[in-house]
Amino acid sequence: MFRHQKELQFEVKVERPDPLLARQIQEVLGGQFGEMTVMMQYLFQGFNCRGDEKYKDMLMDIGTEEIGHVEMLCSLISQLLDGASPEAQAEAAEDPAIAAVMGGINPQHLLVSGLGGLPTNSNGVPWNGAYIVASGNLLADMRSNLHAESQGRLQVARLYHMTKDEGVRATFRKMLARDRYHQYQWMEAIAELEEKNGVVVPASFPPEAEQESQPQAYEFWDLSEGNESADGPWAKGTSPDGTGEYVYLQNPAPQGQVPNPEVPPTALHHDLDEKKILNK
Amino acid sequence: MFRHQKELQFEVKVERPDPLLARQIQEVLGGQFGEMTVMMQYLFQGFNCRGDEKYKDMLMDIGTEEIGHVEMLCSLISQLLDGASPEAQAEAAEDPAIAAVMGGINPQHLLVSGLGGLPTNSNGVPWNGAYIVASGNLLADMRSNLHAESQGRLQVARLYHMTKDEGVRATFRKMLARDRYHQYQWMEAIAELEEKNGVVVPASFPPEAEQESQPQAYEFWDLSEGNESADGPWAKGTSPDGTGEYVYLQNPAPQGQVPNPEVPPTALHHDLDEKKILNK
Amino acid sequence: MFRHQKELQFEVKVERPDPLLARQIQEVLGGQFGEMTVMMQYLFQGFNCRGDEKYKDMLMDIGTEEIGHVEMLCSLISQLLDGASPEAQAEAAEDPAIAAVMGGINPQHLLVSGLGGLPTNSNGVPWNGAYIVASGNLLADMRSNLHAESQGRLQVARLYHMTKDEGVRATFRKMLARDRYHQYQWMEAIAELEEKNGVVVPASFPPEAEQESQPQAYEFWDLSEGNESADGPWAKGTSPDGTGEYVYLQNPAPQGQVPNPEVPPTALHHDLDEKKILNK
Amino acid sequence: MFRHQKELQFEVKVERPDPLLARQIQEVLGGQFGEMTVMMQYLFQGFNCRGDEKYKDMLMDIGTEEIGHVEMLCSLISQLLDGASPEAQAEAAEDPAIAAVMGGINPQHLLVSGLGGLPTNSNGVPWNGAYIVASGNLLADMRSNLHAESQGRLQVARLYHMTKDEGVRATFRKMLARDRYHQYQWMEAIAELEEKNGVVVPASFPPEAEQESQPQAYEFWDLSEGNESADGPWAKGTSPDGTGEYVYLQNPAPQGQVPNPEVPPTALHHDLDEKKILNK
Amino acid sequence: MFRHQKELQFEVKVERPDPLLARQIQEVLGGQFGEMTVMMQYLFQGFNCRGDEKYKDMLMDIGTEEIGHVEMLCSLISQLLDGASPEAQAEAAEDPAIAAVMGGINPQHLLVSGLGGLPTNSNGVPWNGAYIVASGNLLADMRSNLHAESQGRLQVARLYHMTKDEGVRATFRKMLARDRYHQYQWMEAIAELEEKNGVVVPASFPPEAEQESQPQAYEFWDLSEGNESADGPWAKGTSPDGTGEYVYLQNPAPQGQVPNPEVPPTALHHDLDEKKILNK
Amino acid sequence: MFRHQKELQFEVKVERPDPLLARQIQEVLGGQFGEMTVMMQYLFQGFNCRGDEKYKDMLMDIGTEEIGHVEMLCSLISQLLDGASPEAQAEAAEDPAIAAVMGGINPQHLLVSGLGGLPTNSNGVPWNGAYIVASGNLLADMRSNLHAESQGRLQVARLYHMTKDEGVRATFRKMLARDRYHQYQWMEAIAELEEKNGVVVPASFPPEAEQESQPQAYEFWDLSEGNESADGPWAKGTSPDGTGEYVYLQNPAPQGQVPNPEVPPTALHHDLDEKKILNK
Repeated sequence: MFRHQKELQFEVKVERPDPLLARQIQEVLGGQFGEMTVMMQYLFQGFNCRGDEKYKDMLMDIGTEEIGHVEMLCSLISQLLDGASPEAQAEAAEDPAIAAVMGGINPQHLLVSGLGGLPTNSNGVPWNGAYIVASGNLLADMRSNLHAESQGRLQVARLYHMTKDEGVRATFRKMLARDRYHQYQWMEAIAELEEKNGVVVPASFPPEAEQESQPQAYEFWDLSEGNESADGPWAKGTSPDGTGEYVYLQNPAPQGQVPNPEVPPTALHHDLDEKKILNK
Repeated sequence: MFRHQKELQFEVKVERPDPLLARQIQEVLGGQFGEMTVMMQYLFQGFNCRGDEKYKDMLMDIGTEEIGHVEMLCSLISQLLDGASPEAQAEAAEDPAIAAVMGGINPQHLLVSGLGGLPTNSNGVPWNGAYIVASGNLLADMRSNLHAESQGRLQVARLYHMTKDEGVRATFRKMLARDRYHQYQWMEAIAELEEKNGVVVPASFPPEAEQESQPQAYEFWDLSEGNESADGPWAKGTSPDGTGEYVYLQNPAPQGQVPNPEVPPTALHHDLDEKKILNK
Repeated sequence: MFRHQKELQFEVKVERPDPLLARQIQEVLGGQFGEMTVMMQYLFQGFNCRGDEKYKDMLMDIGTEEIGHVEMLCSLISQLLDGASPEAQAEAAEDPAIAAVMGGINPQHLLVSGLGGLPTNSNGVPWNGAYIVASGNLLADMRSNLHAESQGRLQVARLYHMTKDEGVRATFRKMLARDRYHQYQWMEAIAELEEKNGVVVPASFPPEAEQESQPQAYEFWDLSEGNESADGPWAKGTSPDGTGEYVYLQNPAPQGQVPNPEVPPTALHHDLDEKKILNK
Repeated sequence: MFRHQKELQFEVKVERPDPLLARQIQEVLGGQFGEMTVMMQYLFQGFNCRGDEKYKDMLMDIGTEEIGHVEMLCSLISQLLDGASPEAQAEAAEDPAIAAVMGGINPQHLLVSGLGGLPTNSNGVPWNGAYIVASGNLLADMRSNLHAESQGRLQVARLYHMTKDEGVRATFRKMLARDRYHQYQWMEAIAELEEKNGVVVPASFPPEAEQESQPQAYEFWDLSEGNESADGPWAKGTSPDGTGEYVYLQNPAPQGQVPNPEVPPTALHHDLDEKKILNK
Repeated sequence: MFRHQKELQFEVKVERPDPLLARQIQEVLGGQFGEMTVMMQYLFQGFNCRGDEKYKDMLMDIGTEEIGHVEMLCSLISQLLDGASPEAQAEAAEDPAIAAVMGGINPQHLLVSGLGGLPTNSNGVPWNGAYIVASGNLLADMRSNLHAESQGRLQVARLYHMTKDEGVRATFRKMLARDRYHQYQWMEAIAELEEKNGVVVPASFPPEAEQESQPQAYEFWDLSEGNESADGPWAKGTSPDGTGEYVYLQNPAPQGQVPNPEVPPTALHHDLDEKKILNK
Repeated sequence: MFRHQKELQFEVKVERPDPLLARQIQEVLGGQFGEMTVMMQYLFQGFNCRGDEKYKDMLMDIGTEEIGHVEMLCSLISQLLDGASPEAQAEAAEDPAIAAVMGGINPQHLLVSGLGGLPTNSNGVPWNGAYIVASGNLLADMRSNLHAESQGRLQVARLYHMTKDEGVRATFRKMLARDRYHQYQWMEAIAELEEKNGVVVPASFPPEAEQESQPQAYEFWDLSEGNESADGPWAKGTSPDGTGEYVYLQNPAPQGQVPNPEVPPTALHHDLDEKKILNK
């Protein structure tokens, strides 16, 4: 069960309205790696978590924090939209200076939400459940979390330069600092899990169960001409768990058959044999 | 530019048709972490890659390999569907034994693709471009790749137990072995990049640029009651880069304001003030 | 079966082209509460209607009218786009005045529809079937209809101020007048249905069937700190049907268990127990 | 800012696993009117709320409660899936009795979530942001809330009969009781707002602003043959606000023009005039 | 403006309920090539049509007919669902014979539409506006129409064998006959347009405008090993308009550059140069 | 299996950056008829192809070529975005001249892809699998291919006029020339298939199988008032296969019943009969 406190987790202030920036910030609210994604992802991982309570509690701690981040971004967007009005939009076509301000506004910020945050990305595409991941395998999911925080921090860092508003920048700096720590957190959890079970997901399907596939397993297939890729740690040396050696296969030949699918029954109407005419 | 060879990369054989399994395998063809995803993700990352040619070549090598994996799965699904027919479907309602075989079939495998693979997941939801990630930041993207291969291998491992067909299982074992190597590959690339730039994405927005946020940056906010999460490496100790100490904040108080958004212009029709009646 | 007459239901005229306005009007054509939505919603409710012919006939009357509204909006958008040209778009980058006119144009109005209306909202997101509701329960569906007309009229009212074109404004005033009447219509139908069956949907699952849940049923759980919500008609007094008293629960305690899900079979590869290693 | 308590709001118990029911319950978790929808809808309405604190507090109270309902449904689905295994799926094709149990299972409950709840509906379509409504106009949004609770309770009532599991039924009865109260709540809020501003949304665009459209505004256009619809309160009598009389228009004639759009510039390539051949 | 008549265009009868077939028929109601698609496609093409009234009238004739086809399919689905009940679903898990009937039912036919047709395909994916095409170029759009009727008739032909219900089969035979005529219609229109403007879309960008690209224009690039494709009319001979000869290029070499994109500004945080550390 | 060569198929050069054009070009990369669509469509048709090897080889030749076209467009977009920077975006609000350049930029080109191509259309809607068609019926699918190339060439022709950049225009001219040839190719294949099996899809469900529906099959129903459509080759004359005569039906009467669906079981809660109150 959840509870809500009126105050925002951190203070959110803007120096002046900026509807264009409001549109751009939608990316980190309702985009693929926005706060809605990490909020829903950590909550679903926490709700579905089985096994060690330590991980479940951590997921619920951070997932609950992220609900508050959605709240903060809605507040930020509302403040950036304050003062935007339908009438200004009507002026825009006539005055290039107003158009410069209003031209890039998300029309739904006026029409649909009436100056509030939207559950969409910076192009107005609705957030959807396929952005999130909760597989039950802790290591797989923690890697998703580390990845999501990496993309999220990258986007906030890019946004940072798209405004000169010192109020907004202060909020962004706080988010950047927090996202750095979140990256550390998932890294720590990953390190612990990898130490326990090994680095491959899932650990419970181990190398020896794939034994007859082993010879080919560690071949790097050079399928894009040029050998620059041979000069990387992925192409030579021993696998982390010592189960094999990487091999760089420079001109690899296919090892499978030429597929030769059957002609299907007439009732599927591929029309491959003009003689088989169907009687009803 | 690309070229195609007729043979499949690896041999794909099934012992007997199984339309239900064909439906389930769609998840690893056209689902969130299916082969279409890794194919398109590595190709877009490769097409958009800037900087060191070594990474671009590697992305193009593996991305090109993955196009062939989509081809292999289409062949696998076609073989599992061979022999499925509309008429059997018509029989299903009357004979429980046939219903057991046909009941779970994806109707689109008959109606839409005529026994071929579909660009959808196991529930028929079309693959979409928001499944993939290509941000330009190499470390962020390699983490996505490691994550995708982790989820993908997990799903194949689960599929493995959903069939007793030794032909299909042999193909799955090959995929499991290959996906293990792919996890190693991205790990090696990640290790190299982390050594160069540090572990946080993006590196070019460093801790000192967020300095005034530092005190709070490393606090673990215990927002889900219970302290089990305190017992993890994310809650105590020093950050990997030595820039600070983690702090477990047990009963954290919010630090922001209570938001108090303005009443918007009448032309937005929030109807908050009944006295402001609009004159056209 | 349907028939079509060439004339539009009402006259649609514009004073001058305005591609930016054309983009914004897409919201009330193909958005969540646009004319496509009410058209498809009333038609599906009518097609699926069971029981009293009076309601079915009404739904078909209004649904058929709405097809004509989609037609009117396509005509409006075409007129607003007349004169927009690819060449003007090419000029935009060089001349701020042209950019002010062309900058906000929906590129698909040129590229995809060639100056016609699109089945999308103001951000180009395609209309989809999940916007509509037809549950078979008349009261539930009429409430959806009242709601859709409320959001629809609100959006047209907001659009009204985004243009100074008196031709467009005249069309909008007609739509606003019509949408007011449509709100009345659904209100009248709702009142009749509520009088017959009671105000709760569905009526056929009555309070006495939930008897043992009764004590908690009418508690207002104050889960957001602050008591302002206690000062509303939802927090005190008797329920409309006299079945109980509302209770304001100020510091509510959870009444359920701490969930404790089982560790799943190894074949699901959660990797929760490192000792269970799978043998193929 | 939010906080989480470990206990569920209400107890959730099942008598026995039932993967088919787990799939069906996804509709009220991640479907158009599931708990994710009301949770996100009330939170966004609360975050964006401007004006009277009383409404904002109420929205936050109920929105916060609904996060806990998502949590409860995930727990319910996990319990119904406990014991489902990939191996049982492999048996299903051979044994009609097992097939009867396993045939309708959502394959993603095994493959993707590993026996946890998914952010999708009963057919596996991901939840998306276009399910929710937060327009800023309180009356419009409260009508959406009443409607959502009506559809939601209807679906739970239907689900109730799809199982004989008394544990699940007890949970459903609690949800039905609670959803009844939630319908009352929104009704009370609606009544208060209608009394203040009038029944039409938005009130700030009043009848007199549409004056010249008045004559036609209250005509019921009989566009579906048959006059059964004349026999309803929507077709005769006075509008609730006394601004006009309803008129039943039995054989209505269109009042607009036959649209006659311009032939567009050659650069749009409609190919309407074969003489205009383009020179590059 | 549109009008509605109560009678269906053709009679729709079923011999007995069949919920599984009802689910499958959703494909030709709300799928990619279902009746909703042709209805909306022809209406949008008609609404947006510019130029010769003959085509616009034809599009409106057929588009209006198709609204009635959606109506007929909703009636067909309702009849196939009559008698399906939630209680039967609850029995299914226990009795393989009932499971055979109920196992494949679309849960939304019970939960969401209460035994009515849904605006979704056979897997429950909502119909969306991106299924339709209305480009303004008549020849391009007529080709889309011919194609849609080809896929649509193919799917109905496949469905025909999935039932033994003679009532349903009679309806399908009528649809098959009608879809044949519709294919003829679009073919006739295409022939007329091709005769007028030539066979290439768009005609207004003619061969001579691409002159310098001509040498390569008609080369067939053999990029999939094997020469079977050389044995087709697309690989040898003269183009239909006599503007050139086809050439089969057996081992084609790429003619472009190796792309070499710039390293982007630091503010995009690609992290390609560890020395450029950003100062805020 | 596939291989990759470093060089692009054709040279791609731009004269100067143009972020607005980059956004527009996304339509022909990731839109409904962009290169991603033809690439995936031809590959899936080829992977699933059964029967004559000649067609499969052709599909694989062209499908493989199209992967390279996605690569070319990514390179084109990257070049057009080079030099765009977050800082310029921040300047835009203040300087109309910069705003004219930056105003229409896709924010995801900065935030999400860091100056690379995106798998989305010109409005940022992600590409999805429902854009493509692979039914197994060769004639149906070749008609889809002809149609896709028609829409694709039309969009490139429109784009051509939206820029004055001679580098970009040279690339477009090459695409236009190539798309013309591709239209010829599918036409040739279609002609061959029509000659073999007849013009109607599917041929295996022939006219005589629909015999009793024949009288009505060839009637043109004039459902949109006005007779302009009578003046077309679709309304008079003999069908291409000589099986019947077209008939223009000027005032067609419906031939079906008035639908009269049953009142459903109480457990579906339509609430149509207030007397049936449910006992749990």
